[in-house]
Amino acid sequence: MRGVVMHAPGDVRVEDRNEPEIVRPTDAIIRLSATCICGSDLWSYRGVDDVHDAPMGHEYVGVVEEVGSGVRNVKPGQFVVGSFIASDNTCEICQAGYQSRCVQAEMIGNIGTQAQYARIPLADGTLVATPEMPPAEMMPGLLAASDVLGTGWFAAVAAVAGPGKTVAVVGDGAVGLLGILAAKQLGAERIIAMSRHRDRQTLAREFGATDIVEERGDEGVAMIKELTNGLGAHSVIEAVGTQESMMQAISSTRPGGHVGYVGLAHGVKLPGDKLFFSAVHLHGGLAPVRRFLPELIKLIWNGQIDPGKVFDLRLPLQDAAEGYKAMDERRAVKVLLTV
Amino acid sequence: MRGVVMHAPGDVRVEDRNEPEIVRPTDAIIRLSATCICGSDLWSYRGVDDVHDAPMGHEYVGVVEEVGSGVRNVKPGQFVVGSFIASDNTCEICQAGYQSRCVQAEMIGNIGTQAQYARIPLADGTLVATPEMPPAEMMPGLLAASDVLGTGWFAAVAAVAGPGKTVAVVGDGAVGLLGILAAKQLGAERIIAMSRHRDRQTLAREFGATDIVEERGDEGVAMIKELTNGLGAHSVIEAVGTQESMMQAISSTRPGGHVGYVGLAHGVKLPGDKLFFSAVHLHGGLAPVRRFLPELIKLIWNGQIDPGKVFDLRLPLQDAAEGYKAMDERRAVKVLLTV
Repeated sequence: MRGVVMHAPGDVRVEDRNEPEIVRPTDAIIRLSATCICGSDLWSYRGVDDVHDAPMGHEYVGVVEEVGSGVRNVKPGQFVVGSFIASDNTCEICQAGYQSRCVQAEMIGNIGTQAQYARIPLADGTLVATPEMPPAEMMPGLLAASDVLGTGWFAAVAAVAGPGKTVAVVGDGAVGLLGILAAKQLGAERIIAMSRHRDRQTLAREFGATDIVEERGDEGVAMIKELTNGLGAHSVIEAVGTQESMMQAISSTRPGGHVGYVGLAHGVKLPGDKLFFSAVHLHGGLAPVRRFLPELIKLIWNGQIDPGKVFDLRLPLQDAAEGYKAMDERRAVKVLLTV
Repeated sequence: MRGVVMHAPGDVRVEDRNEPEIVRPTDAIIRLSATCICGSDLWSYRGVDDVHDAPMGHEYVGVVEEVGSGVRNVKPGQFVVGSFIASDNTCEICQAGYQSRCVQAEMIGNIGTQAQYARIPLADGTLVATPEMPPAEMMPGLLAASDVLGTGWFAAVAAVAGPGKTVAVVGDGAVGLLGILAAKQLGAERIIAMSRHRDRQTLAREFGATDIVEERGDEGVAMIKELTNGLGAHSVIEAVGTQESMMQAISSTRPGGHVGYVGLAHGVKLPGDKLFFSAVHLHGGLAPVRRFLPELIKLIWNGQIDPGKVFDLRLPLQDAAEGYKAMDERRAVKVLLTV
């Protein structure tokens, strides 16, 4: 089969890879319908994370081809969406809603779903089938649910976005934008997108942003304070993962407010005294997407949300290298790869 | 009047100070019945925090002597307990339960309650009167409510201690010990005290600890994991404020669990990646003691809790210097000063 391999930073190739096989009775093999490139893949592409001959990709939707002897919840022929982390969905941690830290958790990124087929471990716990085969136009939305929507949604939930709340969003990548969509769905009264890119501002407004703040750092914080009676936002979504973005998020939050952070932390060191005196709630990390999947699929299926809009470039799998390049150069927010 | 002044680290004297007067119409003057020395006073005493000719003390109970023209809720002759931070209790932040970050907040520590009299700003919002004059034996408990109990209680609430939960407590000072008492009151199923001092272990058990872990750092974390089926505690109270104690707290918490931290952070830098992958909730800071005061006073008044047990040394105000020394040398957990 064809699949993406990153040989070194910046060196992405689509090559012949072995077709996956059932390894454990809890596995399923899926035929990918679509996959995509994640903002977090850029950490490797840019050489911030070490990478060497790695299969790439952790977002996926597709049709079940084969299941192991122990799989009960999904069957061949079903269309499925799964989280970017495999989980049994039965352990104590999963039951508490933290499937991304399941005691049996496996990173799908190590398997690589930018390919024609993929083995999904713990299929019963990881995959959620759609009611029937989705129409083509729904594919991008369902694919988004696999990570980027689920992650933005978790950030909004972690930030306790809801009725009467003012929510600020740090980061205007796909996750930040879908954090806006999530905050809107959760009933937030006011949503402030922090963005200086005109096209992303447009999508932010489409997803529910009521205000745009172009300033960053201390100036951005000052603007958020100005918009919130000097107090700061109730809820702040952090979707970048740098020292600056984390501090911007914490400082934009009112005392007693909530920061939901999902940007994969790189080089972040939070000063304990600033955190102490901020009096914020801080929660985040790898999103337990599986917790939200049934609800997200329902919202997409019923046409209540269209998270697929974050894909602004669509390429065949064979052209994955161009997709990485486009995202690296910020020519695209998020690239969908058709398989 | 007589009052404590710290001239420099280690140099504590009881001197004549001016009697306080009403400055603003929202002020009250109280005659102290008792005051005490806080673990956080030791940061100054040991020279970690800069200090120079400073009046000391922020915990207090006493009788109202005089009120400003704008004070409505308390009147002369009433016995009152107040938080270590003055707050109006009406602003949006106070109403959300974060009185320690009231838009008008004033630190009582800058006034200094290790004295015969003290001016309490924002008296209506800050002070809570007891039903009547309390008996002498209730005095230590009510005094504890002013900070150390309220802070331990907030830590337990921030850590979401409650029925079915396993709570671990990092720090066996007065706040940690009262965090145990709070967790017990909040219905925690199992409470693990991390302590290597025999006398404090005894008090910990008296307050509700079910297990004692003497190990610290990585070994302490390993013990907590061993006691919790490899998962970590649901709730962890951090009551020290150092890098080691914060990391011990975060690492002892299961994914999705809650860390409630109230140790005044000194030199803490939290690594963003560790925090990210921990998937814990982190909340804490200066405790909004005022939020809990009415409930705490009620529990003490009805004899349901006796937090006054944390005072293991009682001295007249005049001997405050000896009190500081005893706490610095760990000969006392907490010193009550009779006025």
